[in-house]
Amino acid sequence: MSEKIAVLGAGSWGSILANLLVENGNDVRLWSYNAQQVEELNSKHTNEKYLPNFTYSDKLVAYSDLKEALIGAETVLFVVPTQAVRSVAKPVNEAIEELGLKPYLIHGSKGIEENTYLRLSEVLAEEIPESNRKAISVISGPSHAEEVAKKDITLITAASEDLEAAQHTQQLFMNDYFRVYTNDDVIGVEIGAALKNIIALGAGALNGLGYGDNAKAALMTRGLAEISRLGTSFGANPFTFIGLSGVGDIIVTATSTNSRNWRAGNELGKGVPLDTVVNQMGMVIEGLTTVKAAYELAKQRHVEMPITEAIYQVLYENKAVKEAIRNLMQREGRSENND
Amino acid sequence: MSEKIAVLGAGSWGSILANLLVENGNDVRLWSYNAQQVEELNSKHTNEKYLPNFTYSDKLVAYSDLKEALIGAETVLFVVPTQAVRSVAKPVNEAIEELGLKPYLIHGSKGIEENTYLRLSEVLAEEIPESNRKAISVISGPSHAEEVAKKDITLITAASEDLEAAQHTQQLFMNDYFRVYTNDDVIGVEIGAALKNIIALGAGALNGLGYGDNAKAALMTRGLAEISRLGTSFGANPFTFIGLSGVGDIIVTATSTNSRNWRAGNELGKGVPLDTVVNQMGMVIEGLTTVKAAYELAKQRHVEMPITEAIYQVLYENKAVKEAIRNLMQREGRSENND
Repeated sequence: MSEKIAVLGAGSWGSILANLLVENGNDVRLWSYNAQQVEELNSKHTNEKYLPNFTYSDKLVAYSDLKEALIGAETVLFVVPTQAVRSVAKPVNEAIEELGLKPYLIHGSKGIEENTYLRLSEVLAEEIPESNRKAISVISGPSHAEEVAKKDITLITAASEDLEAAQHTQQLFMNDYFRVYTNDDVIGVEIGAALKNIIALGAGALNGLGYGDNAKAALMTRGLAEISRLGTSFGANPFTFIGLSGVGDIIVTATSTNSRNWRAGNELGKGVPLDTVVNQMGMVIEGLTTVKAAYELAKQRHVEMPITEAIYQVLYENKAVKEAIRNLMQREGRSENND
Repeated sequence: MSEKIAVLGAGSWGSILANLLVENGNDVRLWSYNAQQVEELNSKHTNEKYLPNFTYSDKLVAYSDLKEALIGAETVLFVVPTQAVRSVAKPVNEAIEELGLKPYLIHGSKGIEENTYLRLSEVLAEEIPESNRKAISVISGPSHAEEVAKKDITLITAASEDLEAAQHTQQLFMNDYFRVYTNDDVIGVEIGAALKNIIALGAGALNGLGYGDNAKAALMTRGLAEISRLGTSFGANPFTFIGLSGVGDIIVTATSTNSRNWRAGNELGKGVPLDTVVNQMGMVIEGLTTVKAAYELAKQRHVEMPITEAIYQVLYENKAVKEAIRNLMQREGRSENND
């Protein structure tokens, strides 16, 4: 299979996926809003800020003009920051209309849109009408970009309501070190991908507080249970949460001390105030937005999410961390599957 | 709640559970076959070989005579090695018959009996007839004994076909650092507890081979999927595998470099031959037996378990590890939930 593909977003994940798609034989245009980064990618085939010490294929061409990047695109892959998906999707829609294209859309971003609490495929569907595109797929799973760069083994999920679109995505990406499983549960995949950051924050906090592996594994497991409860209230398949985009991604994110959300949680656990942590990190900590979204959605939908609620209270209602943990531990004994 | 409880087996897990039950206000007798260990526990309140630098409650009394340990027991907790469960259960049955008891039975061992491929609650039920006991419960979950000793937070599952027995177990163990969830799925809990050791072996092997976090998370996730497939073929509830005794325990066992099975896998991954690894460890590597059992059961029941099969072939059919991984990666693209 060889296709013309536009990859939008040249962070570590977007750029390595673009490189992988080139290696798989596709004709790939990589777009970044940052002209300097585009220049570096085209002249030196590097992307030092995002993926240090890696050399990209010289067949990968980068563009700072969005419309130029989209010329002839049969597939458009969005890998832009969560809160930028809508603002990028608007001009993409205009360009593909002008260019007379009707591409597959895929996205690889993780999060919930602020204020609207929409999933990212919903945002894309709002901004790019069905007449201008084929079905939307989402890819997600345990995938540090640095390991994909080393051709280490990586397995991910490609989900779409349209099986043919999911299989198309699967075939684009699969090779001997990158394995893709299809799934028809877009809701479950996107909710798992977004809410895992809450668990990463919590696991970091437990570490900062000095708790051990038992506590972290319990947090991950019971956190997964409440994410699954919220997801199924939206119609997700509960089995998706046991998959690569659910527990798989939670394992990688919540056990990796490099994860931004884990590091933020770790600082909070050590007693550093929230605003100091946010200033120190100097980057978006997606989990902080996601906690708020999940907390509000759980309230609206009457879904019990005690861990999310505890983290919300610590972050936004000045509850002491130890008090929050004590309350969680002192809840009445429950049954595992019905709680 | 205060009860007379006999705890059988004074390894790290059995002895710390006995200590916790004492702290929760029970009258506990701890049995070990090892008279020297009993002497150490009673005179110094230590158990250096199994839980170094820990001092047990002076209210915990150890016995080397099994019948003496069982006097008055309202509950009997088995925490002996997997392959010793049957040989301990036989004299326990004789003793409780002689003493005229009818205790609750709980076990906290993890594995499948060699040759018979029976779960441990099945072994107990064969050796101790219903007329001599109340319902059997099993406890399992992510729980390093060393962390329970530090009163770190730990969450586990207590499963029984009899809800009242599961709740009785829950109430015996629960306190402000140890939280217990009930579950009615004994099959799922025991299969998860046993087969997690296969995943720990595999994760260790990937580490020894130099693979990263993506590959390990993928192994854990897809390993969980095939364990769940085998479990449900026996009537387990698939949701049990997303719980503390499933994914929770897999996370702790397969990410902990202290786990015996992980360490054995790590050596194998580095290219050390199996017999050398077994000799070096000098302890039972439960996963080696479990791989064989799972492989045979999967064949008998026509359940697809590609990871288990690959590990079996590496261990027992001299297949090269890299070849086994290549075969796994080159399987046709699948759907996530139906595969």
